Amino acid sequence: MRAGMTPVLDDALRAEFQAEGEWPILARHVVRWSEVDAYAHVNHTCYLEWYEDARIRLMEEAGLRLGPDRPGPVLARIEVAYRQPAHFRDEVLVGARVTSFRRTSLVMDYATWVAGRGLVNSATALCVMFVNTTGEKAAIPDSARQLWTARHNAKGE
Amino acid sequence: MRAGMTPVLDDALRAEFQAEGEWPILARHVVRWSEVDAYAHVNHTCYLEWYEDARIRLMEEAGLRLGPDRPGPVLARIEVAYRQPAHFRDEVLVGARVTSFRRTSLVMDYATWVAGRGLVNSATALCVMFVNTTGEKAAIPDSARQLWTARHNAKGE
Amino acid sequence: MRAGMTPVLDDALRAEFQAEGEWPILARHVVRWSEVDAYAHVNHTCYLEWYEDARIRLMEEAGLRLGPDRPGPVLARIEVAYRQPAHFRDEVLVGARVTSFRRTSLVMDYATWVAGRGLVNSATALCVMFVNTTGEKAAIPDSARQLWTARHNAKGE
Amino acid sequence: MRAGMTPVLDDALRAEFQAEGEWPILARHVVRWSEVDAYAHVNHTCYLEWYEDARIRLMEEAGLRLGPDRPGPVLARIEVAYRQPAHFRDEVLVGARVTSFRRTSLVMDYATWVAGRGLVNSATALCVMFVNTTGEKAAIPDSARQLWTARHNAKGE
Repeated sequence: MRAGMTPVLDDALRAEFQAEGEWPILARHVVRWSEVDAYAHVNHTCYLEWYEDARIRLMEEAGLRLGPDRPGPVLARIEVAYRQPAHFRDEVLVGARVTSFRRTSLVMDYATWVAGRGLVNSATALCVMFVNTTGEKAAIPDSARQLWTARHNAKGE
Repeated sequence: MRAGMTPVLDDALRAEFQAEGEWPILARHVVRWSEVDAYAHVNHTCYLEWYEDARIRLMEEAGLRLGPDRPGPVLARIEVAYRQPAHFRDEVLVGARVTSFRRTSLVMDYATWVAGRGLVNSATALCVMFVNTTGEKAAIPDSARQLWTARHNAKGE
Repeated sequence: MRAGMTPVLDDALRAEFQAEGEWPILARHVVRWSEVDAYAHVNHTCYLEWYEDARIRLMEEAGLRLGPDRPGPVLARIEVAYRQPAHFRDEVLVGARVTSFRRTSLVMDYATWVAGRGLVNSATALCVMFVNTTGEKAAIPDSARQLWTARHNAKGE
Repeated sequence: MRAGMTPVLDDALRAEFQAEGEWPILARHVVRWSEVDAYAHVNHTCYLEWYEDARIRLMEEAGLRLGPDRPGPVLARIEVAYRQPAHFRDEVLVGARVTSFRRTSLVMDYATWVAGRGLVNSATALCVMFVNTTGEKAAIPDSARQLWTARHNAKGE
């Protein structure tokens, strides 16, 4: 998944993946051989790797590039729903958005669609912003709060 | 983690890992280099791999060895709480137990403790029993229901 | 890495990655957080996953889509040279080509370049064609032999 | 694979795994579900993860515990021979030994055996000792040289 290649969720993409809702962060991917198990199903951990990649891109969109001495998201909780299996060579679309935030934490939604089959996986994660080198919690910058309110339609406190 | 090497949660092991409660399925592990990220923290997906391994051992204990033409657990939902980071070379203890079951599904708890530091991660998963080759749901055998009631203290329906 | 998105090794791409030689199979990638270790270096196994993905695309280019009842490549040997580390968020270019083939086996070269830094990793692999369900070796089809001779400049026997 | 649990290659273990030669560093493992591909074969990268784990234990045996400001092995080349597939739930034995060393580099052999089936994989790796924080090569300490000569039967320069 390449940075800067986020596709736009236009009508064509919505039709291809049967994707609903607004997802400001998107990435396309083709399932790799190394991502499937002995039943040819995508391993349950792969969705979490895709969501992690989307999370990092989501942070970069807000000017929060990962670094040990800068505020970065630490995963505190995640809830994942496995709706349908995905398979080797499936075309998948991965989406992410911020749904709410507080002073030092935020909630994100994630989703995976398969071309021609629709939604196969969804998740909700709570992250807390920390500076790794100090171990201290960090406030979400105003610029990120504004972006998430305006572009992600997130609810702030 | 070796099959047949499940340690017993005796007083010494409880003290070493500050582990509470009853966990019929246990495994010891030492965090590998390939399991840590650039902050030297265990990757969030590794806990899910450890829990998957514990789930397979839990099924084997109940006579449900994994195979494409036999009933096996398919992950439907998982909720994971990341409480504290674990690090390279940490001694970890991973526990699993069935907490409840219905005709074709079951709920399991998982936990990870670090020696000298206590609980660092916990999770709850819902699995549905399927036969992979037919794609059909399968009833949990009576022998498994009895084992989980007696040994795991699980609530059945 | 998306199927059908193989970039062409034109002058601009050569300049960006300091890439030399002919590489009919190419893919761009941005290093993921899940791919780096505690020194922020790409894990040694990630190159092999990228090469595996390139190998599958190389086979698909020759009409050899992976399937259990069709001839597919089984890795027999690989030799990997780790020249320089790659890091989180590096833009990488991965290349593959067939260098020679016999009746049922082929040799492939692989390479990884980092934008602005050039070649960081290279490998040579020997694969044998097998049909998974029968366990029998399989002859490389004429169409693949012709493609690899013409487009990959491979030496056949 | 637990630190401090290295089994001894006695006659019983040799018979179980059909293992030949001397291997001062050993670990037992049971193949995990997450380690097999859609053909139920162990993924080619898993052997490299097992060997990495063995390498770290080999270094610890020589007093060279991994740390960013201490000399540690950086993989420069590896050659891997995939002889036979291993499968889900196979009991495997992984061995490592130093075969030769120079002032700042060493060569190691690795092997994987499956219980009842013998040798399935072998590899040879060249590592160079570096201090990560300075990026400087480091000399192998005399104590390690003596250990590898005496216990691994390694050839020094």
